[in-house]
Amino acid sequence: MILNDTIVAVATPPGSGAIAIIRVSGPDAIEFTAPVFQAHNNVDLKDQKTHTLQLGYIKDGKRIIDESLVSVFHGKRSYTGTPTVEISCHGSPFIQQEIINLLLRQGCRAANPGEFTMLAFLNGKMDLSQAEAVADLVASDNEAAHQIAMNQMRGGFADEIQQLRDELLNFASLIELELDFTEEDVEFADRDQFQDLVFKIQKTLSRLIDSFAVGNVLKKGIPVAIVGEPNAGKSTLLNALLNEERAIVSDIAGTTRDTIEDEIAIDGIGFRFIDTAGIRETTDEIESLGIQKTFENIQKASITLLMIPSPIALNEEAKKEMIFDINQVKNRFPDKPFLIVVNKIDLLEEQQVAELEESLSHIAGTDLQLISAKKQIGIEALTDKLLNYVNTSALRSNDTIVTNSRHYDSLLKAQKEINHVQEGLNMGLTGDLLAIDIRQALHYFGEITGEITTDDVLGNIFANFCIGK
Amino acid sequence: MILNDTIVAVATPPGSGAIAIIRVSGPDAIEFTAPVFQAHNNVDLKDQKTHTLQLGYIKDGKRIIDESLVSVFHGKRSYTGTPTVEISCHGSPFIQQEIINLLLRQGCRAANPGEFTMLAFLNGKMDLSQAEAVADLVASDNEAAHQIAMNQMRGGFADEIQQLRDELLNFASLIELELDFTEEDVEFADRDQFQDLVFKIQKTLSRLIDSFAVGNVLKKGIPVAIVGEPNAGKSTLLNALLNEERAIVSDIAGTTRDTIEDEIAIDGIGFRFIDTAGIRETTDEIESLGIQKTFENIQKASITLLMIPSPIALNEEAKKEMIFDINQVKNRFPDKPFLIVVNKIDLLEEQQVAELEESLSHIAGTDLQLISAKKQIGIEALTDKLLNYVNTSALRSNDTIVTNSRHYDSLLKAQKEINHVQEGLNMGLTGDLLAIDIRQALHYFGEITGEITTDDVLGNIFANFCIGK
Repeated sequence: MILNDTIVAVATPPGSGAIAIIRVSGPDAIEFTAPVFQAHNNVDLKDQKTHTLQLGYIKDGKRIIDESLVSVFHGKRSYTGTPTVEISCHGSPFIQQEIINLLLRQGCRAANPGEFTMLAFLNGKMDLSQAEAVADLVASDNEAAHQIAMNQMRGGFADEIQQLRDELLNFASLIELELDFTEEDVEFADRDQFQDLVFKIQKTLSRLIDSFAVGNVLKKGIPVAIVGEPNAGKSTLLNALLNEERAIVSDIAGTTRDTIEDEIAIDGIGFRFIDTAGIRETTDEIESLGIQKTFENIQKASITLLMIPSPIALNEEAKKEMIFDINQVKNRFPDKPFLIVVNKIDLLEEQQVAELEESLSHIAGTDLQLISAKKQIGIEALTDKLLNYVNTSALRSNDTIVTNSRHYDSLLKAQKEINHVQEGLNMGLTGDLLAIDIRQALHYFGEITGEITTDDVLGNIFANFCIGK
Repeated sequence: MILNDTIVAVATPPGSGAIAIIRVSGPDAIEFTAPVFQAHNNVDLKDQKTHTLQLGYIKDGKRIIDESLVSVFHGKRSYTGTPTVEISCHGSPFIQQEIINLLLRQGCRAANPGEFTMLAFLNGKMDLSQAEAVADLVASDNEAAHQIAMNQMRGGFADEIQQLRDELLNFASLIELELDFTEEDVEFADRDQFQDLVFKIQKTLSRLIDSFAVGNVLKKGIPVAIVGEPNAGKSTLLNALLNEERAIVSDIAGTTRDTIEDEIAIDGIGFRFIDTAGIRETTDEIESLGIQKTFENIQKASITLLMIPSPIALNEEAKKEMIFDINQVKNRFPDKPFLIVVNKIDLLEEQQVAELEESLSHIAGTDLQLISAKKQIGIEALTDKLLNYVNTSALRSNDTIVTNSRHYDSLLKAQKEINHVQEGLNMGLTGDLLAIDIRQALHYFGEITGEITTDDVLGNIFANFCIGK
C-alpha cells in the first residue's frame, strides 16, 4: 500500500536558512513534479538522466513560487529504491510550505517520520539494523556515537548476525532433514561440528550483549555526576574542559531542568556532566531533598566527581568532616567509581599542595586529582582519568558494538534459545526437539536484520525518526 | 581578493534534520573536495559534468565521516558564477561540523554571511538589487512579501531603474558632448525631448518612492493594534482569524516581550497583531504606564481594533463611558484608522444586536464590526475590512514596489538631483551645470543596481544575510 504512494516532506532542519530541501519519493515522484517545474533550459524533468540537476522555476500555474535546483534519481539508484526528486529551494519557511502544498495538490501524500528510510528498507536498499543506524547517525553528537552508527549503517552489525544466522540455518536444515529419516537413525548434522557452532554463537552473542552496556552509554553520552557546593568551581571546570577540547557543549533536550546537564566530547567520547548539590547530611527538609536528588544522580552516573575547593581541604576540621562525608557516600554506592577533584590549587603554596595530596590519598579506593580550573592546571590529567573509566577497547578495536535496546532484547532472547539448544545437545535430545529451539533462535536473529518483522515493530522503529528522513 | 578564496558554509537551517547541505564555492571548490570524497562508483569528482550528483563517502584519511550526495557545478553555470560543490550529508550537527572542519583543513575559508550571493553579484550573475532580494525571499513569510521579493529577484525593479538610467545616460553624453563645442553654441541634446524625459523620470521616481510606504509595511507585516480589556476575547479572535485563513502564526523574533505579537497572513498579506491593554484613563500609576504603552502601540500601528465585549456595550452607563474613551483616543490620533469590534454577539438577542449597531454607528468616522469570535460570526467581514485598509493596488497590478530602505534612500537622492535638473532646465542653465546634476542622479541610480558601490555598502548589505546564502 505505502509502496504505491508518492510521499513528500521537508528534509532539512526546520526554520529559515539559505537552502531547504523538499524530498519527493514514490512511483509518481517525477510525474508529479514535472508539471510544476519549468527548467530554465526548457528541458522536461521526465527526460532527465538519474543523478542530474536542473535550475528553474517552481510554478503554481502562472505564479512563480521559487527558483530552485531540482535533482532527479531514478528507481533503484535512489535512496529509497523508488523514483525520487529533491527540490533545493530558498530556505524560507513560507516557500517550503508553498511547495509542499503544491505537491500535495499534485497528488503526493505528506510523508510520515522516517518513511523515506522505511521505503529504503522495504525496497531492499538496506536491512532493518542499517535503517535504524540512519536515525542514530543523524542524532550522533560525538565521534564515538557517530562511529558506532556509521559502522552499523555500513552493515557491520548485520553482517555479523547474518553470518551466524546462515551457519545456524544450515544446521537447522540438516537436522530437519533427519526428521524425514527418523526410522533410519541417520545424522546428517555432525553433532560435534554443531556443538562447535553453538559455542561460537554463544561466544559472539555474549560479546555483543556485553557491548551493550558500553554501547548504550557511548550513544547517549557517559553520565558524570559533579558533586560540589556552589563555590567549588563546577562551571569553571566545565569551561576548562571545553577549552581544552574545543568540543561542542549543548544542553540535553528533554531532560528535567532540575539538574543542568552539559555535554562535552573528550577525545571523541561524549560525557554528560550532571551538576548536583553537595552531600552534607542535614536535618533541614529542603536541603535534604537536594541531597536525595544528588544521590539519585550518583546512582544514575557512571562516574562521580567530588569537587572540593582547596581552602576547605586545607582546613583540618573541615577536612575531617569532608572525609567522613565522602566515606559515607562511598559506602552507600560501593560499586560506583568516585574521583575526588580538589580545585583552586593555584591558591596554595607548593608545600601545601604536597601535604594535601598526601592527606587525601588515605581515602581508600578513591582516585584523586588536584586541579586549578581557572589556571587550567591538571585538566589534561583529569580528562585522562575520565577516559580511563570508560571501557572503550571495543570501540577502539572496531568490534561491533550494540547500542540499540531492540537489538539487545533480541540478542538476549536468541541467547536464551541457543542455551536451550546447548542443553538439548548435552542431554542428547532428538532432532525434532532441537529444531524448535534453533528455529526460535533464527527468528530472533531475523528480527534484528528485519527479515522477520511486523507492522507494529516497523511503526515503532520509524516513529522515532525525524520527518523527511 | 575574495574572488581567489574558496569558501565553505552550512547552507541549511541550523540544527538537526534528515539532510544538511554544505556549500563550497571558489576556484578550488572541486579540487579541495575531490580528495576527501570517494564515490561509490569510483569516479573522480574532477571529471564530472556540471549539474551532476555522486553518492559516496566523505573521508578524513581512512575515517568515514559520512555517506553523502555530492553535486558539482562548473564555473559560470553555478549560483556564484565560480566552481561550486554542494555536499548533501546526514543532518547531524556533529557530521556537519566534521565536514566543515575537514574542508577548512583542505584549504577552504569559512564563508561570511551572504558571501555566496556576494560572489554571484561580483561575478555578474545578478545585480545588487537582485542580490538583496535573495535575503528578502528567504525572510518572506507571506505571499505579498514573497511576491515582491520574487519580482525584485527576477530583475523587475532593476530593469525599471536600468531603463531610466540608460535614457538619462544618453542625454548626459549628448550634453557633455556640447561642452566640447561651447563656442559654437550647438545643442546636441534636444531640450524638449530632455524635458519630457525628466518628467517621465520624475513620475517614475514618485511612484517608486510612494510605493515604499506600502512596500515596507507589506514586507514586515502590517501592524494592527488590538486594544481591549483581558476579557474582550482578543486571543479568541486571533484563533478565529487563524481558522478562517489556515495561515501561519508565529511569534515575531526580536520584538520586546512586553507586548505579544502574532503574525497572521490574510489573503496572502501579513498582519502583525499587537495585543495591548485597555484605554481607560486612570490615576493609578502602574495602570497609566500600561495606557502609555497602548498609545505607543496605536502610534506604531497602521490600524487599531478597539475590542469590546457586547455585554459592556449593552450597559447604557458603560457604553457612554466607552464612547467617551474612544472619542478621546480618536482625538489623540486623528490620522489613524480605528475599527470598533464588538465581540460576543452570540450572547445577544437579534433585537439587541440591531440596537447596538444603531447606537454605535454614531461614533463619527469610525468603522464598526459586530462579531462572535467564538462562534465565527462576522470574521470574514472583519478580514475584508482589514484588507480594505491596505492599499494593495500596486501589489495587485504587479507594479514594482520598493521595500528596501537603501533603495528608498537612493531614490530620494536621485529625485532631489532630477528636481535640480528640472529647475536648471527651467532657468536655462548651461550644459556644463546641468551635466553635474545629471551625473549625480546617475550615481544614485547606479547605487541601487550596484554599478556604483563601495566595500562599506557591500559589507552592510551582505552582513544581514544568513551564513551559507
